[in-house]
Amino acid sequence: MRRVAVLAAGSWGTVFAKVLADAGARVDLVARDADVVRAINDRHVNPRYLPSVRLPDQVRATVDPARALARAQLVVLAVPSQALRSVLAPWAALAAPDAIWVSLMKGVEAASRQRMSEVIAEVAGVDRARIAVVSGPNLAHEIAAEHPAATVVASPSPHTARVVQAACWTPYFRPYTNADVTGCELGGAVKNVIALAAGMLEGMGFGTNSQASLITRGLAETVRLGVALGADPMTFAGLAGLGDLVATCGSPLSRNRTFGEKLGRGLTLAQVEAEQRQVAEGVRSCRPLLAMAERHGVSMPITRQVERVLYEGLPPMEAVKDLMSREPGPEYRPVSQPTGAGS
Amino acid sequence: MRRVAVLAAGSWGTVFAKVLADAGARVDLVARDADVVRAINDRHVNPRYLPSVRLPDQVRATVDPARALARAQLVVLAVPSQALRSVLAPWAALAAPDAIWVSLMKGVEAASRQRMSEVIAEVAGVDRARIAVVSGPNLAHEIAAEHPAATVVASPSPHTARVVQAACWTPYFRPYTNADVTGCELGGAVKNVIALAAGMLEGMGFGTNSQASLITRGLAETVRLGVALGADPMTFAGLAGLGDLVATCGSPLSRNRTFGEKLGRGLTLAQVEAEQRQVAEGVRSCRPLLAMAERHGVSMPITRQVERVLYEGLPPMEAVKDLMSREPGPEYRPVSQPTGAGS
Repeated sequence: MRRVAVLAAGSWGTVFAKVLADAGARVDLVARDADVVRAINDRHVNPRYLPSVRLPDQVRATVDPARALARAQLVVLAVPSQALRSVLAPWAALAAPDAIWVSLMKGVEAASRQRMSEVIAEVAGVDRARIAVVSGPNLAHEIAAEHPAATVVASPSPHTARVVQAACWTPYFRPYTNADVTGCELGGAVKNVIALAAGMLEGMGFGTNSQASLITRGLAETVRLGVALGADPMTFAGLAGLGDLVATCGSPLSRNRTFGEKLGRGLTLAQVEAEQRQVAEGVRSCRPLLAMAERHGVSMPITRQVERVLYEGLPPMEAVKDLMSREPGPEYRPVSQPTGAGS
Repeated sequence: MRRVAVLAAGSWGTVFAKVLADAGARVDLVARDADVVRAINDRHVNPRYLPSVRLPDQVRATVDPARALARAQLVVLAVPSQALRSVLAPWAALAAPDAIWVSLMKGVEAASRQRMSEVIAEVAGVDRARIAVVSGPNLAHEIAAEHPAATVVASPSPHTARVVQAACWTPYFRPYTNADVTGCELGGAVKNVIALAAGMLEGMGFGTNSQASLITRGLAETVRLGVALGADPMTFAGLAGLGDLVATCGSPLSRNRTFGEKLGRGLTLAQVEAEQRQVAEGVRSCRPLLAMAERHGVSMPITRQVERVLYEGLPPMEAVKDLMSREPGPEYRPVSQPTGAGS
């Protein structure tokens, strides 16, 4: 039986542990809180993040990363992006040298501007061929309820991608493979910023047309950044690009959208942060993404307006006016970068 | 002052008449019903489709197409797709020979498999350089409320595109130009079929992940058909492709989605048609689109399942199972058609 370690027991980590167990693995789910560990092992629920879902018996919780990592063939990481580097260093030494590392995280490290797979490769000293990224339109509570969903497993190694695909394929969870790790990770990171903007529109009372235009133009700036960084533009038309963006912007349960909604109703960054318990990844990824865009001469007008609202106190309505008042020209202008060609 | 004729006074025709008037034109709105004409001219409301919105004074209604067409520089068509050919023949003779024709319609003629601009060119004998298509994420009731929205004006003639752009540009309505008429019309036609599927998912109780996957895979099959028919794939990443698809699938007020929702709850095609007053274009466009796809060897699995539900009595839940049970492989396979290259 396949052994998997999942770190840690937030909502997506917990649900993904269920998916892995339903696909046939024995899962060690690492939680910091002894009460959560006890509840999972005794009552098969995570009382903090998923109180109403019964976890499979093959999901066992532990506070001890060493125990989970020692025997894991797959190590699944689901921690806040900005915390990864510090928690990963001690874990890396505990894992088997041939373990496959799987990232469920969607963000960019602020200080280094690295994507999560880059942090894993560097800190854990793992070859990129043994790293995979799982990303797609995957709202945790819906997958917990076993509503059908699809996702992308990306790795430069087709073998690694297929191993992870097999490890999480269930009748309700449908993983496709893809070789474009950069594109999948950027899609996941930028969509959290766009979801902040979607929430702001919602908070200001705008409707479906505005949301659809935001998603369209938001995807366009994601593609621009991705192409500049060597991603395959087709990735952004797929589940980890468009799919994830649509799901996150469309769901009232998305953390980043909820965060943006409060900004749209006039709260400041500090006020919303005080109110909201879980991390909104887009708040932290916004600036490093803009810095990457600037270095490559890429325009990201929506991300820039989100930054101004978050960090410069711009009222969200002014941000919308700025975006709407530019003179409308042709929808696309000829670009010098290649914008096509499927993998 | 610019003179525009709008035929006819359905919800989108009426709202677009308001947009044109707000952009500075004198608009003759042609309605069949004398009561509607009276209400528009006396009380500035369309009691049938838009009872709560006050229309500008420069919108005047008439039952007489001859009067409206004789002096129009722009002729805007907003009738059901399957009715266009029969109503257009008598109108064509009444218009000025140098008039610009604008299509707001989103469908494919069932018998001929022609797009709306092709029907206009053929029946009215108009050069394609004098035809434009307006398409985008444009739910009528939101534009009536002047919520900010963007759209695409497509014409093979840059001059025509710019004339129409200027004619409908207001502070709340932002038109971009595009040369790809085929892509804009296909985007509009296929999205109505995908919206039927989105409604079915909703009616069966599926959530956001499923909707996001449907939109992603629905756009993929739209692009495949479009590329086979000579459209620019970038159009589908834009407002008339992705944007319109997201708006229509996301809005509980979309006719096609509402129609699909009833199918998803178990009603038959005949039962839903008896209940619903306005035409759901996707019901009529589904088969001609599939026929076009087959002729070009293009796979459209979602459109095919919608056809089976509509016309072969397949239960919607079986359609979902069929789509979910195919073995998941790579997200994209190499294709022989070009899939990229911006305009």
